[in-house]
Amino acid sequence: MFTLFHHPFCPHSRFIRLIAGEYGLDLKLVEERSWERREAFLLLNAAGTTPVLVDEEQPIPGAAIIAEYIDEAYGAEMEPKRLMPETVAERVEVRRLMAWFNEKFFEEVSHPLVTERIYKRFMSEENGGGAPSADVMRAAKANVRYHLAYIGWLAQTRNFLAGDRLTYADLAAAAHLSAIDYLGDVPWSEDDAAKAWYARVKSRPSFRPLLSEWLAGVPASRTYVDLDF
Amino acid sequence: MFTLFHHPFCPHSRFIRLIAGEYGLDLKLVEERSWERREAFLLLNAAGTTPVLVDEEQPIPGAAIIAEYIDEAYGAEMEPKRLMPETVAERVEVRRLMAWFNEKFFEEVSHPLVTERIYKRFMSEENGGGAPSADVMRAAKANVRYHLAYIGWLAQTRNFLAGDRLTYADLAAAAHLSAIDYLGDVPWSEDDAAKAWYARVKSRPSFRPLLSEWLAGVPASRTYVDLDF
Repeated sequence: MFTLFHHPFCPHSRFIRLIAGEYGLDLKLVEERSWERREAFLLLNAAGTTPVLVDEEQPIPGAAIIAEYIDEAYGAEMEPKRLMPETVAERVEVRRLMAWFNEKFFEEVSHPLVTERIYKRFMSEENGGGAPSADVMRAAKANVRYHLAYIGWLAQTRNFLAGDRLTYADLAAAAHLSAIDYLGDVPWSEDDAAKAWYARVKSRPSFRPLLSEWLAGVPASRTYVDLDF
Repeated sequence: MFTLFHHPFCPHSRFIRLIAGEYGLDLKLVEERSWERREAFLLLNAAGTTPVLVDEEQPIPGAAIIAEYIDEAYGAEMEPKRLMPETVAERVEVRRLMAWFNEKFFEEVSHPLVTERIYKRFMSEENGGGAPSADVMRAAKANVRYHLAYIGWLAQTRNFLAGDRLTYADLAAAAHLSAIDYLGDVPWSEDDAAKAWYARVKSRPSFRPLLSEWLAGVPASRTYVDLDF
């Protein structure tokens, strides 16, 4: 039994939940509002960010670090469903794309949109709460378009984003997209290949728990739960 | 022979140069001004950032990904000087601190300071060049103080930042610090333990190439090359 300190709309937390779902790892979920900087949480992760996985009392902070940890501790026994390839060269490509979504897409798209449209509802004024910034949202929505085109290009070139098999790269991309798809902020009609790839990943059983969690007062977009969106 | 596309003041590039120095890997250095978005460079790394390591025609982009790659491809043969520990739990701590410096310290301190004080000199106006922003520099200089205290706390608790041995964590921290130390932006007098740890790392032979590179028009701070600063 693992414990995951997460937030339902934290894209990095969603990434770890998808990995756990693919591997059948049993997660106890604890919702953490990282902006409140709860002292006991800071002891688990001095950076104060979600997600943090606790495995037999060891805290493992951060999406990429958790992904590496799970691969090192449990990856070998997960074959043939292992989400990290075996060869050094293929691992470079999976890590490159993981970082692309967990860092670049997060910074340019998913973090600003989730912060403005969701987190700010829960934040007190001194924590940065208040009305969403139209400027920030406009910039993020412009950025999502080139990322979608990049996903489409990868999906046309390969079976999955990093190669033949489903890997961490697909789950990271899908996790970030899912958080903003809930908000209706993905212009799916602009890229058929990206849309077809996402439909495949979204229809996996590991995705179901994410699709069934709704936020009171913020209805999901029309396409969010629809597997044939 | 490896090729490293880098910038002399890019902290992430410095981190990779330190690793190569510790391991005795022969690097051919190519200076890249990433803000110019040179097309051939974007083919090596779509994200357009330094560093990129090329090992036998395979491009490996990004500091953390290069560090993992070097460990997977060459780490085992580097014992007893290997910079990643063997146990899964120790690797979590090294990765946590690598991310702390490569992501958090970079965003809060080294990236703003290096951008404002160095990169902007070389950037054209449409690339964001111009006079440094006093506000950005003030914020970054305030942030460096809590990071220095954190380093000091770690250095008092442990022999090196992540444990008994020198690891990637020390080299990442020292790489980012060195870039802003050149500019005189580290308040060393505020933390004796951090200063003593840095003096130990800075006196390693792997550090020498960094200390001997000076930038025309931007003299190094008084303490930069001094091993007993």
